[in-house]
Amino acid sequence: MKKLINAVDDVVADELKGIELAHPDLVRVDHENAVIYRADAPVKGKVALISGGGSGHEPMHGGFVGKGMLDAACAGPVFTSPTPDQMVAATKAVASEAGVLYIVKNYTGDVMNFEMAAEMVAMEDESIRIETVVIDDDCAVQDSTWTAGRRGVGLTVLLEKIVGAAAEAGQDLDSCLALAKKLNAQGRSYGMALDACTTPAAGQKSFELADDEMELGVGIHGEPGRETAKIMDAHGIAEHMVKAVTDDYDFSDEDVIVMVNGMGATPLIELYLMYGEIAQMLADKGIKIARNLVGNYITSLDMAGCSLTILKADEEILRLWDAPVLTAGLRKGI
Amino acid sequence: MKKLINAVDDVVADELKGIELAHPDLVRVDHENAVIYRADAPVKGKVALISGGGSGHEPMHGGFVGKGMLDAACAGPVFTSPTPDQMVAATKAVASEAGVLYIVKNYTGDVMNFEMAAEMVAMEDESIRIETVVIDDDCAVQDSTWTAGRRGVGLTVLLEKIVGAAAEAGQDLDSCLALAKKLNAQGRSYGMALDACTTPAAGQKSFELADDEMELGVGIHGEPGRETAKIMDAHGIAEHMVKAVTDDYDFSDEDVIVMVNGMGATPLIELYLMYGEIAQMLADKGIKIARNLVGNYITSLDMAGCSLTILKADEEILRLWDAPVLTAGLRKGI
Repeated sequence: MKKLINAVDDVVADELKGIELAHPDLVRVDHENAVIYRADAPVKGKVALISGGGSGHEPMHGGFVGKGMLDAACAGPVFTSPTPDQMVAATKAVASEAGVLYIVKNYTGDVMNFEMAAEMVAMEDESIRIETVVIDDDCAVQDSTWTAGRRGVGLTVLLEKIVGAAAEAGQDLDSCLALAKKLNAQGRSYGMALDACTTPAAGQKSFELADDEMELGVGIHGEPGRETAKIMDAHGIAEHMVKAVTDDYDFSDEDVIVMVNGMGATPLIELYLMYGEIAQMLADKGIKIARNLVGNYITSLDMAGCSLTILKADEEILRLWDAPVLTAGLRKGI
Repeated sequence: MKKLINAVDDVVADELKGIELAHPDLVRVDHENAVIYRADAPVKGKVALISGGGSGHEPMHGGFVGKGMLDAACAGPVFTSPTPDQMVAATKAVASEAGVLYIVKNYTGDVMNFEMAAEMVAMEDESIRIETVVIDDDCAVQDSTWTAGRRGVGLTVLLEKIVGAAAEAGQDLDSCLALAKKLNAQGRSYGMALDACTTPAAGQKSFELADDEMELGVGIHGEPGRETAKIMDAHGIAEHMVKAVTDDYDFSDEDVIVMVNGMGATPLIELYLMYGEIAQMLADKGIKIARNLVGNYITSLDMAGCSLTILKADEEILRLWDAPVLTAGLRKGI
């Protein structure tokens, strides 16, 4: 295993030190609880957005903490859910009288722990109102190694940005929750891998692919996907991904936001090339890309590959998408 | 070879299509000449900054075209200099009465072709004044496979940002040139690789490393570095890199801008971890990091590894660093 790390058990703690040193203007880090807070949290009167999950998906979620996006991100060990205790600490630190929204990707551990955290907070302090949205946008597989139901993947990035803007604009908890559920209902993702990732703990690739094989419908935790297939060129891969997503939801004649996301070890030259293929295919289907995002936003350590996320977007969603955001991983207008 | 590409010969053309479709608000693409222009170029009265080089280093240079940074970037084939004809086309398209600054990384092909382009433009149109800065910040090796003298690497990113801000603020060509030379004189870089890259044309790794080896002082074109060494942990690697850079230039008791850059296939979790190590070491040496940049900015296709760039920065340089910039690869304040 070749990685820029020290002891395997210290990877996340060491990373958090780096984030703290790199971005003192944006965030502060609670090392005891492995939580990244927006520097000015709690923000009075604003719905607080809290997310989190296993580490290894950077910049998600810690890189999305800041003005216009998340108030706190709980960092679990690599590919392992953070604990309810971490989530409780985060909740107490950022909760305002406007309430708290948990943004949870649909993985069994994450869902269970955020549920437990909400119960623990309720027992301690009835005044903190908590709602939860569970994201399950991955149309590749119905259930998986890690999930009952569909997995939560790329849509999380777009949702955290858009609901973050709504919260920043002063929308109340009910509105933020309704918006989050609406986004989850009208967004879909699908991923593929040219090569698997290696977790520091395992020290070897999470699955094996031959030199002429790729994994289609892959997740973000090194779990197998929908099928192993012979490798295709970018055009063929784009066609497969676009079909998978557009077969699952009808985006035709709608404005959409499209994300072409790298899995961690795929260079930007390939991601732009894929975006070119995908954008042309969507145009041919009468789907209008109103906004796009190309780059590494929700990764799977050093997995090579990419994912496609499409979100149906009305004017209100586009306005929230365009709102200023200031985080380490995504910034505009500030 | 596993890559998200179509035909090997079409990689750059296909990528440029994707960039054009993704960023019509920021850039326009001249496909015939493989040049990326700032959308509103030529900008009247502003010194035009033109850079370029082989492709495979994305987001550099095309991702740095836009307000507050470059006016044009010439995209050569992967790891191959663009031609003088491309540079002439770029010059004619963006030149204003304020003149043109060529920002050239010190590689033999790039230097020769930008020189030739300047001569060709001079023969056609005497009214266009062109100056050139050649960047040679890599303190790893004196000469290399591709270079007489030191290579131009990570400092290019910082220089394009800072001189871009100066040009945007209305500084004249002499001032921009003097600033660029000053930055080059007081910035140093050093890179390392855990694994080599694979160019589409070669289809195999540019050099071989055993499972327990890394390459120190590596360049950005798959060329060998200073030495092949047994792999170390992040702390050991950071120590080696910090020593190499600070032995070459005395940054003590100065404000600096530090970039920890990924080579293309290294996930962000590792880059932040490295930044944590490096920032601590520099603090221990009395070097004050005033600003930092952590991420993939000057890459080498799918090479795994990172580079460190340190630039001595006075108040004026920091002010220019903080100025608004709006490009695909770097943005702040807009």
